[in-house]
Amino acid sequence: MSAPNPAYDLAAFRADLGAIATEDNPKLVKQKSRDFFWYSPVLKRQLDDVTADLVVTPKSEAEVVAAVAAAYRHGVPLTVRGAGTGNYGQAMPLSGGAILNLAEMTAVKAIGSGFVVAEAGAIIEAIDTATRAHSGQELRLHPSTYRSATIGGFIAGGSGGVGSVRWGGLRDHGNIIRARVVTCEATPRVLDLTGDDMHKVSHAYGTNGVITEVEMPLTAAYDWVDVLCGFDDYVTAARFGDALARQDGLLAKEIAVVAAPVPHDYFLRHQKFIRRDQSVAVLAIAPFAIGAFAAFAARMQAEILYRSDTASDEEKKGLPPAYELTWNHTTLRGLRVDPSITYLQTLYPAPDHLEKVATIAGIFGDEVPEHLEFVRFDGDVACFGLPIVRFSTEERLEEIIALYEANGCPVFNPHRYTLEEGGMKQTDAVQLAFKREADPKGLLNPGKMIAWEDPEFDFTSEKTYLFKGLRVAG
Amino acid sequence: MSAPNPAYDLAAFRADLGAIATEDNPKLVKQKSRDFFWYSPVLKRQLDDVTADLVVTPKSEAEVVAAVAAAYRHGVPLTVRGAGTGNYGQAMPLSGGAILNLAEMTAVKAIGSGFVVAEAGAIIEAIDTATRAHSGQELRLHPSTYRSATIGGFIAGGSGGVGSVRWGGLRDHGNIIRARVVTCEATPRVLDLTGDDMHKVSHAYGTNGVITEVEMPLTAAYDWVDVLCGFDDYVTAARFGDALARQDGLLAKEIAVVAAPVPHDYFLRHQKFIRRDQSVAVLAIAPFAIGAFAAFAARMQAEILYRSDTASDEEKKGLPPAYELTWNHTTLRGLRVDPSITYLQTLYPAPDHLEKVATIAGIFGDEVPEHLEFVRFDGDVACFGLPIVRFSTEERLEEIIALYEANGCPVFNPHRYTLEEGGMKQTDAVQLAFKREADPKGLLNPGKMIAWEDPEFDFTSEKTYLFKGLRVAG
Repeated sequence: MSAPNPAYDLAAFRADLGAIATEDNPKLVKQKSRDFFWYSPVLKRQLDDVTADLVVTPKSEAEVVAAVAAAYRHGVPLTVRGAGTGNYGQAMPLSGGAILNLAEMTAVKAIGSGFVVAEAGAIIEAIDTATRAHSGQELRLHPSTYRSATIGGFIAGGSGGVGSVRWGGLRDHGNIIRARVVTCEATPRVLDLTGDDMHKVSHAYGTNGVITEVEMPLTAAYDWVDVLCGFDDYVTAARFGDALARQDGLLAKEIAVVAAPVPHDYFLRHQKFIRRDQSVAVLAIAPFAIGAFAAFAARMQAEILYRSDTASDEEKKGLPPAYELTWNHTTLRGLRVDPSITYLQTLYPAPDHLEKVATIAGIFGDEVPEHLEFVRFDGDVACFGLPIVRFSTEERLEEIIALYEANGCPVFNPHRYTLEEGGMKQTDAVQLAFKREADPKGLLNPGKMIAWEDPEFDFTSEKTYLFKGLRVAG
Repeated sequence: MSAPNPAYDLAAFRADLGAIATEDNPKLVKQKSRDFFWYSPVLKRQLDDVTADLVVTPKSEAEVVAAVAAAYRHGVPLTVRGAGTGNYGQAMPLSGGAILNLAEMTAVKAIGSGFVVAEAGAIIEAIDTATRAHSGQELRLHPSTYRSATIGGFIAGGSGGVGSVRWGGLRDHGNIIRARVVTCEATPRVLDLTGDDMHKVSHAYGTNGVITEVEMPLTAAYDWVDVLCGFDDYVTAARFGDALARQDGLLAKEIAVVAAPVPHDYFLRHQKFIRRDQSVAVLAIAPFAIGAFAAFAARMQAEILYRSDTASDEEKKGLPPAYELTWNHTTLRGLRVDPSITYLQTLYPAPDHLEKVATIAGIFGDEVPEHLEFVRFDGDVACFGLPIVRFSTEERLEEIIALYEANGCPVFNPHRYTLEEGGMKQTDAVQLAFKREADPKGLLNPGKMIAWEDPEFDFTSEKTYLFKGLRVAG
């Protein structure tokens, strides 16, 4: 099992932690050292043996400050973890050290008109439960891992999800109001970041600060109606999704389009509603908009396969919510049926995203059954692609990525564990500068920010960055 | 004063109305026969003497049915009126007859999650007061005449307004859930129109049915922060408005841009905040978004002239709400200062609306100080133009209109009293077909639907339609 990291004195670190809860059972530590990296056969090969030495579970911001100060003192790598629902190894401790597990910091501290303040470890569904009960409000955005993901993990490692078709992504101004961050210094500072300063730590994988508390905008909560619509061909389904996303008055929280035969083959609980040759739009519609939606669907000749508001209890029995067919859950359902598949993440940029959708579909056919997520992106309707890839070799996967990019669809490569390779393929100067200030020893989530680890790295080289400090524990 | 209409027996009609309230004092009847048509020097010339013979004020749907049946029996023209806040003579009785005044039908009948049911005569502000108190909700859209306009009048004669930057217009599916309509037949029917059927009566000026009740979608209510931002030039201000409208995560309810010197010269109560050479963005921002907005404004180098959330009580004293500087209130404030001005209504269609804005500004300069309203339009950010026009002659006004249209900006001519000339300049087959069914005698708001009055009218002729039945009372 995991060998002690020779670079630091584990026993002295533990002694310094005092009463803060820790766990060193190697099996339990390894469980908490993993996320959903195994979606990727590439990351699975690279990271399967990664583990920390210790899990540290603070119960308060004061304990976070004490734990971070101790880590700084002893030079212990520190990888912050929420619920471990990321797909890119975001929360995996490449250099060992300690997992800073925030799962016990779950308080919903304040709810007001349009906002909630919660500790980073609060589960997203639990926040919504509290805000719905308080004042009929809910979070604007959530990942498909709504029922398990933490709000801090979503902000540190996510980008958007359900709700992005109305509100855009987490990167958009206004979708995070404030993040409270503990720096990794001799005397850790506690900073409240707002406005443009949010970009220092949002989607930074915890590489430059420990998010302990967030303030998020809320919107009106509704009993969203789950709808599945069937189409004879995928491009028609994509056109429908786009047209619906452009209906500004028709409130939808989720518009996904999944090409046949994925819906039938992988949405096992909904399989009874879906023919194998049907591409499917997976939707969440506001209940008071369902009349207008039905009229719209009829005009667009969409076949309504399933509506949660009219389905019988018998039909609904055992069905997961529609959002658990979307975003990364589409892939998850695929992996459960066929562990050999994997996926990609791309953007079809506006305004000719539908043309690109048709072009890409023509190139790959069933090797890459497409899955689209319609979103607002810089004020336009556009779509992300999260296609299923029938995986053969890593070389072919690279070819597929190159073909997407050659056709104007940038790939956010989910087969890389670094911020830059999974994102914009360039240094984020703001995040790097903040890391210099907030993590001078480079202890926070080592190996994830190339700009820090290897300032000379050439992003145009098409070489994969491999973190030299990746400690594969025995 | 008004002469009895020879085509019908007024006394017999009145006798048939029984206990339904009526008013025949010519002065009061004339007051209730007018709207804000006088915004237009053209309409003022054409319609200044228009008046009905009688005002009929039902207090319930049953009284509406009885009044309409009586009108049908006696062949009395019937023009439905809310609060008379329209600008195009929508509610003016071109053939005399009776005003059907719905101002007494003001009940808010039901409020639920995401919807409200109200009688047509309910004042928009009163609906919001009720829905805010009930559950922190408000209407998505309202005209700048929020404090006086009725919900039924808004639907019958309006198109959108404050809120359209987020929700699109009334014509968009989902922005009206249901309208309850009384037909003008021997035995009037009461119909609940939903889905696509809504288009039969929305924005039909009451020409094909009497809307007695509506069901409207609600959204979360906030204490919107009024903001004025100043810019050294109008095109920069327009770019700011567009960029803000594209911030999907930054919740704004209103984004207007008004070219100098209109804000300084016409916004008299706010004049102290505005230099004469400043073009101004008039905004309503959600309170929890104001931090993100301030960061955005700083980055865009917008000078914040006024913020209602930080202004002192002394500064705020006597200021109207920001929405009363926008939409048709911009023009209204101009008319109060300089009765010789008038205005236009245009669309700058996406995606090159900002280029068109710059082009148009270059053509007219201070003869036509522009006023933009940013909206969502078919899923895109676009803007309407409601420019002030320094009026000289009707011929020059026509030239200005022609120049807008030659530059790709369709004009919804507010100097015409017909549906078609103020709108899409073509027959609305759906509204016409419904009029045939619901108003076979053509008694409802005569003269407003060209397709009914003159099926042969050539919309490409550029001739103004003049209703032959326009009775100018003495």
